[in-house]
Amino acid sequence: MPKVTAEHRLARREQIVGAALHCVAEHGFHKATMADVIRESGLSAGAVYGYFKSKDEIIAAIADQALSTVDELFEGILSTDEPLSLAAVMRRVLEHVVTVAERHDGDVTRVGLQAWAEAVHNPAIATIAREKYTILRTHYATVARRAQADGTLPSDVDPEHVAQVLFGMLPGFILQRLLLGDVSPQTYSAGLDALLGSNS
Amino acid sequence: MPKVTAEHRLARREQIVGAALHCVAEHGFHKATMADVIRESGLSAGAVYGYFKSKDEIIAAIADQALSTVDELFEGILSTDEPLSLAAVMRRVLEHVVTVAERHDGDVTRVGLQAWAEAVHNPAIATIAREKYTILRTHYATVARRAQADGTLPSDVDPEHVAQVLFGMLPGFILQRLLLGDVSPQTYSAGLDALLGSNS
Repeated sequence: MPKVTAEHRLARREQIVGAALHCVAEHGFHKATMADVIRESGLSAGAVYGYFKSKDEIIAAIADQALSTVDELFEGILSTDEPLSLAAVMRRVLEHVVTVAERHDGDVTRVGLQAWAEAVHNPAIATIAREKYTILRTHYATVARRAQADGTLPSDVDPEHVAQVLFGMLPGFILQRLLLGDVSPQTYSAGLDALLGSNS
Repeated sequence: MPKVTAEHRLARREQIVGAALHCVAEHGFHKATMADVIRESGLSAGAVYGYFKSKDEIIAAIADQALSTVDELFEGILSTDEPLSLAAVMRRVLEHVVTVAERHDGDVTRVGLQAWAEAVHNPAIATIAREKYTILRTHYATVARRAQADGTLPSDVDPEHVAQVLFGMLPGFILQRLLLGDVSPQTYSAGLDALLGSNS
């Protein structure tokens, strides 16, 4: 029954990644140990090492997951033919991030901060971050092009430059949410709506 | 000669913090060692420990410095009575950050990323980050109030919410600059100008 086996392996892998994510959200990449992950996963050491040979491999897997938080969201956003409001897109992104962050199995945005810091020094994580963020920014550029086609964004601006700013609004939101604790999708969107003004 | 001694101590302290900043920008908070910092500083171990009792104390000092990068800039920005353009303020902030980051003694924005990740788990760094970022956001709120007084920002929005978004644009710029390497104050400002539209 190879299909069941593949599903079983995938579920086990997710169980380990989930445990690792929980440990790293609590303690950071550097202080979380394989022993912590094994304990948290409820599996044997042998089982865990059957999926991940080292802490580096687990770190890569959870960095991948942490940096993919809003990936699936854009399929829904871009699948409609309705005119896209930039402010509405950003609001959906913010709400989605907070919903995912508040899941009981560990705040993935805390792991995101770890992944950013790690990417500066760790080539494997840098590669994952570049791949993930290049794709994410492509989605924002598509949103900008749609807004230009709709006439809600000036047509003489490079949509890639607008995508840099739209992409760039999320890390600062995540940072303020974790470090200052007083931002929400509502407050941030209110500020954004005022700034975007007639473009929203 | 107590004045000379105080100046001398301050210069020595800066020399050590500069060396530590260089090491952390290269290797991250967790992999940089006291031995690295001592070697980089050119001072004796005894001299370095005379200023900082532990790596934690040095980390606090460089986190403080990394999170203070744009502090002095706002004195200049807010000292004028001229109407403030939000787009122009953001452009000055971005240009300032890149100028500081490109100094030869280590990219302080790389240390900033380390400080964000550390603040999530380390109460001492969290306190520094909260203090620094609360002050910084107050500056942005002042800018928003000035724009409201000038009539370039709607008066019915909470300036604190606008400040969240203005503050929030910088971490995403820093992240893209370090991880993707293709943003500059020019490209980001071009995107921002288009988004702010008539409000700029």
